[in-house]
Amino acid sequence: MELAARVAHMRGTGGNGWGILYRARAMIAAGEQVVMLTIGEPDVRTDPAILAAMAQSAANGHTGYTDIPGIPALRAEIAARVTARTGVETRAENVLVTPGGQAALYTAHQVLLDPGHAGLYISPFYPTYPGTIRASGAEARAVEARAEAGFQPAKADILAASAGARTLLINSPNNPTGVIYTPDTIAGIAGACTEADLWLISDEVYETQVWEGPAISPRSLPGMAERTVVLGSLSKSHAMTGSRIGWMVAPEAVIDAAHELAINTTYGVPGFIQDAALFALRRGAGFEAAVAAPFGRRRDIVRDVMAGSPVVGLTHPAGAMYAMLDIRRTGLSGEAFAARLLDEEKIAVMPGESFGAPAAGHLRIALTLEDGALEAALLRLRAFAEALAG
Amino acid sequence: MELAARVAHMRGTGGNGWGILYRARAMIAAGEQVVMLTIGEPDVRTDPAILAAMAQSAANGHTGYTDIPGIPALRAEIAARVTARTGVETRAENVLVTPGGQAALYTAHQVLLDPGHAGLYISPFYPTYPGTIRASGAEARAVEARAEAGFQPAKADILAASAGARTLLINSPNNPTGVIYTPDTIAGIAGACTEADLWLISDEVYETQVWEGPAISPRSLPGMAERTVVLGSLSKSHAMTGSRIGWMVAPEAVIDAAHELAINTTYGVPGFIQDAALFALRRGAGFEAAVAAPFGRRRDIVRDVMAGSPVVGLTHPAGAMYAMLDIRRTGLSGEAFAARLLDEEKIAVMPGESFGAPAAGHLRIALTLEDGALEAALLRLRAFAEALAG
Repeated sequence: MELAARVAHMRGTGGNGWGILYRARAMIAAGEQVVMLTIGEPDVRTDPAILAAMAQSAANGHTGYTDIPGIPALRAEIAARVTARTGVETRAENVLVTPGGQAALYTAHQVLLDPGHAGLYISPFYPTYPGTIRASGAEARAVEARAEAGFQPAKADILAASAGARTLLINSPNNPTGVIYTPDTIAGIAGACTEADLWLISDEVYETQVWEGPAISPRSLPGMAERTVVLGSLSKSHAMTGSRIGWMVAPEAVIDAAHELAINTTYGVPGFIQDAALFALRRGAGFEAAVAAPFGRRRDIVRDVMAGSPVVGLTHPAGAMYAMLDIRRTGLSGEAFAARLLDEEKIAVMPGESFGAPAAGHLRIALTLEDGALEAALLRLRAFAEALAG
Repeated sequence: MELAARVAHMRGTGGNGWGILYRARAMIAAGEQVVMLTIGEPDVRTDPAILAAMAQSAANGHTGYTDIPGIPALRAEIAARVTARTGVETRAENVLVTPGGQAALYTAHQVLLDPGHAGLYISPFYPTYPGTIRASGAEARAVEARAEAGFQPAKADILAASAGARTLLINSPNNPTGVIYTPDTIAGIAGACTEADLWLISDEVYETQVWEGPAISPRSLPGMAERTVVLGSLSKSHAMTGSRIGWMVAPEAVIDAAHELAINTTYGVPGFIQDAALFALRRGAGFEAAVAAPFGRRRDIVRDVMAGSPVVGLTHPAGAMYAMLDIRRTGLSGEAFAARLLDEEKIAVMPGESFGAPAAGHLRIALTLEDGALEAALLRLRAFAEALAG
């Protein structure tokens, strides 16, 4: 009995790059102490008040089928949020509520890409990107953002890769690099999309984690709203990873198509989770700043610990909850360094290679450990790197 | 800016058949009293104890990323349930937890069908079936189950439609007809799948609503487990429609592929909902019987009200929460009858045509109204039909 050819195409040929993570988890399961700097999950849990709002909604009876594109109040709230943050007038009809940001990412590519097309993405990249693009049957084609350019993608490189492409996927503030695309980069991206007639899919799930802005939503550039799909989520902004709640903002024709797809994929998002999301969004900017604050503190810690190291370089971390360390002066690859760091120091980090070739010789640090423990681990990492090089 | 060709293919050319429903809702919104016999949503809400289990899980901190194919305890519980109900040894590795039965339906077709294939389904059908099949890029091809055959599909008809087909989707107990496939029908389906080398996708979401059994899971027939995907859900069995929790049971290679797809589609199901589902399943058969009981009582009411009518025929309702009435002796189509019934009697029912050509001249009644109100509405419907005919 054969599976659909789609499955092998989606899988692709590369490994998934999570070997270090799985090995670290196995060590922990075997009773070893390992410092985990691997995964982008906030180390705070969902706020009890948000969970109480969810429980209340369920107890009040919001437990039946609900509006498949999202309850009207939540769609309106998201639209108002986007309007306020970007200045682009956005209506509820431009919003689809999805079961998480990943579902919005999947949906956008399903309604915009067919087999025979190419979908572009920037490398280094979040690990689900290529498979999600390939799940549409299209080719997933990387555009490299170079370490030497601070991982800012270049307009010329996008255009050079654009033959047969229909979409470009970007992410700023960026996972895994911690960079925010500069106004020049965003203008170049918008220009490339216009010149090559691409849809732009802008993953903005780290929009509240901005340490040095501005973080420009490219949908706000002239002429871009009609060709841009913005992906949002409450996972990082409100520490709601496990609630699986996100959204897509797009022209109405895209939302209509995505709505019809949602009838067939998931038939909507639980109403009590939507009510919790509405409550969460209405807590306002102060709440979001408080959720983001630890990651801002920790990015200062990384910067301070690595300052002046003759061996470890740091990509300037302007946003998101990651730092990208350059350890090429040790002479090791990211994978080899991470393997030795795990074995010898019991510190687990992600090799840059897990996120694409341009991050080779780098390490991604997730800033999801309590400040003191993070600082101690980073000091050991720096010393380890300097001993290797020295 | 163009959408993917997939969107138009998924949409197809037919209407969605929900015109009566939308008109009835508009009448209610305008303040009219309308008796709604349209939608298959249980009229009881999710049990407070299940919601309390969910709230407790969330409060205990199960609010982060969780196991994408499902938490091990829930996968094991579902596997044990399937083993106990069908006698087919089923392991946790044969189970994928999904955000609702619809997601399982979508996932099964995505991992088994490609563009160029055909996916078979039995007509009359649940309205998302054709679009879900077409979302894979395949052709959705109906196999008609005739009213004269009690809506039991025939092996010969499946084989006659099988050129280029890779899958067959069935649903027993059945929505919209309320029939349960007989042992002979199930044997014919299994034989057709073996002879034509088809995957069988068996939607068993009404498995607890069996008034006159047996309701055989075709996966239990010799040689069928290796080519069968079973879809399950807690929506109907536990009145948890809004929690969006279901599953797929399949050979391990299918589950592995579906797991990889789930990484790209939804990145898992909320852990607190999975904990609620585990609690719900552990309540056992007595709880499920209590949830199902009102629909069994009401199918007796339909049978008693329509008994001896010279005009209205009743497809023998052996299971599920629907009854299919034959109103062809009125000389009207199901659509024309439903429109007049709504206008003149303020009773909303689904025209059989909404579910496919073989149900033309029929009406689907959802047994989701309190017993006394249901009986009163059915008596009015019968009198209305007899007056039309007479």
